[in-house]
Amino acid sequence: MEIEKFVRPNIKSLTPYQAKEIPCRVKLDANESPYGLSRQVLAVLSSRKGRDLFLRVNRYPDPEAGSLKKVIAANLKIRPENLLQGNGSDELIYYLITTFGGPVLFPTPTFSMYGIIAQAIGEEKVGVPLDEEFDLDMKRMLREIRLNKPKLIFLSTPNNPTGNCFSSDRILKIIESGSSRSIVVVDEAYQPFASEKGFIPLLRDYKNLLIMRTLSKIGLAGLRAGFLIGNQKIINEVNKVRLPFNLNSLSQAIAEEVMRRGVTLKHNIKSVVSERGRLFREMSKIYGVKPYPSEANFILFRTVDPDAIYEGLLRKGVLVRNMKGVVDGCLRVTVGTPEENRIFIGALKRVVSKNRERKK
Amino acid sequence: MEIEKFVRPNIKSLTPYQAKEIPCRVKLDANESPYGLSRQVLAVLSSRKGRDLFLRVNRYPDPEAGSLKKVIAANLKIRPENLLQGNGSDELIYYLITTFGGPVLFPTPTFSMYGIIAQAIGEEKVGVPLDEEFDLDMKRMLREIRLNKPKLIFLSTPNNPTGNCFSSDRILKIIESGSSRSIVVVDEAYQPFASEKGFIPLLRDYKNLLIMRTLSKIGLAGLRAGFLIGNQKIINEVNKVRLPFNLNSLSQAIAEEVMRRGVTLKHNIKSVVSERGRLFREMSKIYGVKPYPSEANFILFRTVDPDAIYEGLLRKGVLVRNMKGVVDGCLRVTVGTPEENRIFIGALKRVVSKNRERKK
Repeated sequence: MEIEKFVRPNIKSLTPYQAKEIPCRVKLDANESPYGLSRQVLAVLSSRKGRDLFLRVNRYPDPEAGSLKKVIAANLKIRPENLLQGNGSDELIYYLITTFGGPVLFPTPTFSMYGIIAQAIGEEKVGVPLDEEFDLDMKRMLREIRLNKPKLIFLSTPNNPTGNCFSSDRILKIIESGSSRSIVVVDEAYQPFASEKGFIPLLRDYKNLLIMRTLSKIGLAGLRAGFLIGNQKIINEVNKVRLPFNLNSLSQAIAEEVMRRGVTLKHNIKSVVSERGRLFREMSKIYGVKPYPSEANFILFRTVDPDAIYEGLLRKGVLVRNMKGVVDGCLRVTVGTPEENRIFIGALKRVVSKNRERKK
Repeated sequence: MEIEKFVRPNIKSLTPYQAKEIPCRVKLDANESPYGLSRQVLAVLSSRKGRDLFLRVNRYPDPEAGSLKKVIAANLKIRPENLLQGNGSDELIYYLITTFGGPVLFPTPTFSMYGIIAQAIGEEKVGVPLDEEFDLDMKRMLREIRLNKPKLIFLSTPNNPTGNCFSSDRILKIIESGSSRSIVVVDEAYQPFASEKGFIPLLRDYKNLLIMRTLSKIGLAGLRAGFLIGNQKIINEVNKVRLPFNLNSLSQAIAEEVMRRGVTLKHNIKSVVSERGRLFREMSKIYGVKPYPSEANFILFRTVDPDAIYEGLLRKGVLVRNMKGVVDGCLRVTVGTPEENRIFIGALKRVVSKNRERKK
């Protein structure tokens, strides 16, 4: 008996998301926040309240995540009924494709999980190349939407890995074009770092619009907490395919404590945004390096010999992401603490100049 | 535009798992362990090690859960390569049906999530009634397997909600009958409370056999940690549909600390098993109550007027599970601490006798 026979064909040919832990001193590869829990939240965890929380892990989590959703809803100025909690946004993508089916359409390059999950579930995926400015190529997008009649369109804005926001008017045109048959999911994972306000205020106007948010980029990647935001009718349908206890009790409680202390969060985000500006200016000065403007917590940059530069940085203890096969010729660096960014810039300068000398 | 049009038909008609928080003094409805984290693990969490763990929640979890899998593997006397981590067993059921497809076959009554998830994913589900002793009805099982050619067969043993183990020879016959086309998943969620050894030693002999284990019934329901155990080829295929960061970092770390201290776990399990015996004897003495023998951490019992008894118990602060529609005429009580069981028995006696008087 060959086990291969038992597996659905779309799984057999599936290449899963590659997430490996590579040892390094400065970790700037995964778009994480460089800031861990604040002293205030640590104090709560070591208080009686924390102890009570840990003592209760023998009990199932609140299946509705009611307390956390209240805080998140207040924070986003929406109602808890418009929220669905996920074990990270990843799980919400799974649920969305399970609920609405495919084809699943998205611009490329973008967050790889839209396509991976579509294939895992066995739904058709349609990737539509972005234009030269990494913005939505409207001619191609509208044509592919017309041809493929996607059930779901994923738009990550700011987009990972390019870092830019798509033009709002283009996004709106896509939402309107799909209003009779496509759900448009605007993935705002990186929105907290953007200068624009995001699409939540538009939820009233467009019933086929859904928005995703996550706590992973603003300091809580380890907890796995993502949220789907939309009108209650859609939320109720997607909620049907949600596993009842998908968000564990510690993540619920700790995320709530963190969100209650929004000041620290905002301060950390501000620091990342300001460091992003500094990083961009410093990178621009390096001969052979071309950073792309970013509205997210990372910077995509073009460089000569990206593989050599990637390896050279790693030898100096700095881990970035090699975008080979996604945006050829580019690396992506996450904005870290001022100290981490200083180390990165220093290493990048040395590695690039050494590489140039070697080639002379 | 009606949102209903967008949703797949199998979702529209889906009734999700009902998990509601009902206020009570003694919670015996969800087959949780009555014992929370031990003092030793609490001490670790309030030590520097715990602080470092909390500080790192800005980082994504280990996608391989390598450290936890090592401890679990040692505990089960298997290799880490034979393990796949899930955000609870629920998620593993999702992954299994995604990987292998349907039809999905299971005896009834059993754990409701097999059927709910099959329907959510849009796969056919086939429920085959158990015999009068709540054991597998082999004639019907083999016939339905022959007729439906299921890709997946789920066997929960000890079975929830009946509490008994299915006969090993019947399970073996089903594994053998399906060896050329069905994966048989033996769900051993309640195995730690059973007198028999479970099916892990048989993994070598049957390539179409998979086993599920969970930490939810032995004290860690809040963490959401389940495991799929099988030969490496199957594990690798199911791993392809796993979300890379499905098990959050706190659950990984705390589950590891708990599993390293196996003595406390074993002690708690022993206490539950011994209390189960006492509970069974006490319940047997109550006129109008008939408990079924159990190899799990709960007891299914038949009673006159189950709805009235359920409500009467709840009025006394004791929450059990009403099995109406699943095993009509029955309630299910989880084994609690000696004190909780004492309260439950006292309340049950009073409620049943009051109910009898009322009817005279």
